[in-house]
Amino acid sequence: MQPKSENVVWNHSLVKPGERRALLGHGAVTLWFTGLSGSGKSTLCNAVEKRLVELGAIAYVLDGDNVRVGLCADLGFEPADRSENIRRVGQVARLFNDAGVIVLTAFISPYRSDRSSAREILPAGQFVEVFVDTPLEVCEQRDVKGLYARARAGEIPEFTGISAPYEPPEAAEIRLPAGERDVDWCVERVIEYLRQTDVLAS
Amino acid sequence: MQPKSENVVWNHSLVKPGERRALLGHGAVTLWFTGLSGSGKSTLCNAVEKRLVELGAIAYVLDGDNVRVGLCADLGFEPADRSENIRRVGQVARLFNDAGVIVLTAFISPYRSDRSSAREILPAGQFVEVFVDTPLEVCEQRDVKGLYARARAGEIPEFTGISAPYEPPEAAEIRLPAGERDVDWCVERVIEYLRQTDVLAS
Repeated sequence: MQPKSENVVWNHSLVKPGERRALLGHGAVTLWFTGLSGSGKSTLCNAVEKRLVELGAIAYVLDGDNVRVGLCADLGFEPADRSENIRRVGQVARLFNDAGVIVLTAFISPYRSDRSSAREILPAGQFVEVFVDTPLEVCEQRDVKGLYARARAGEIPEFTGISAPYEPPEAAEIRLPAGERDVDWCVERVIEYLRQTDVLAS
Repeated sequence: MQPKSENVVWNHSLVKPGERRALLGHGAVTLWFTGLSGSGKSTLCNAVEKRLVELGAIAYVLDGDNVRVGLCADLGFEPADRSENIRRVGQVARLFNDAGVIVLTAFISPYRSDRSSAREILPAGQFVEVFVDTPLEVCEQRDVKGLYARARAGEIPEFTGISAPYEPPEAAEIRLPAGERDVDWCVERVIEYLRQTDVLAS
């Protein structure tokens, strides 16, 4: 998106990215969790965040619901609003990474094109797609928030997986089979990836 | 603003605010710099950020121009767009503070009502208004970006201080007389405030 306002230029910080890494002892990426409603995105994000803080890293979850309560309170669930939601979150993730913080995002983000846009907002290598690959049947059976039942009853329009599409990632950096593996296994898989890619010291 | 989307609730992190403070060694507030174009907001924000990082604190500047290049690229400078810009920045600052990061914002933010809204978005005591009190004559004389000349020539509509109002703060937590004092003096004034209010250890 081209800025609507003219006379604006990027302000370069006096703090170099390397200085932040030296201060914090780790790099900064955005772990972009995608998956169906009820697949376990928020649970896994929260668990990875907790583990990272235990390891002394500064990490923060941008949760779908939290963002919709505040930053994106003006947006609904129509495709255009979903895209704008994802765009804003990508921009916020970029700012957090720039500050040195590891970001975890928990958004259904059902459209491949929106996830691609978010990937493009971030500097190369900083967008890490994490596919929470829990089958629809399992999500619907859990139905933690009772939303699937309401969607099946036609009470919630455009519900991902029921009346709106979910486009699974084709080449996610990390795939978590969260229907078969427990939370601890998934957390360690993510930590292992961060060590392999030198975000965390080995 | 009430969320437009239903079925959303605040997701509580497994990481307690106290844990972040213990990890980072400091508290998190939003230093909201307000003042005319050319008053020195960005320069002072960058200098305070650098000083904080030298002191081992994690701090980050949300600059007016940077935000308008990305997160708020869809917004212009009409009053409604300015308000929405400030609302989004307030929400992002809240997320950063929640993550444990000290935020410095450099926005003209000319309307008292918008600054009040931003203050209300943040938890009590976390919004610290910093009035960069440089007289209009000094800003116009400097005219670093050549914008005052263009505004006087009528080329930029609704330019704060010339063809749009600037409402100075009535009770800013910090006032920086940046027309009379140098950058180092102003930086130390801010650091002193952060020590007095226990954001930084004394």
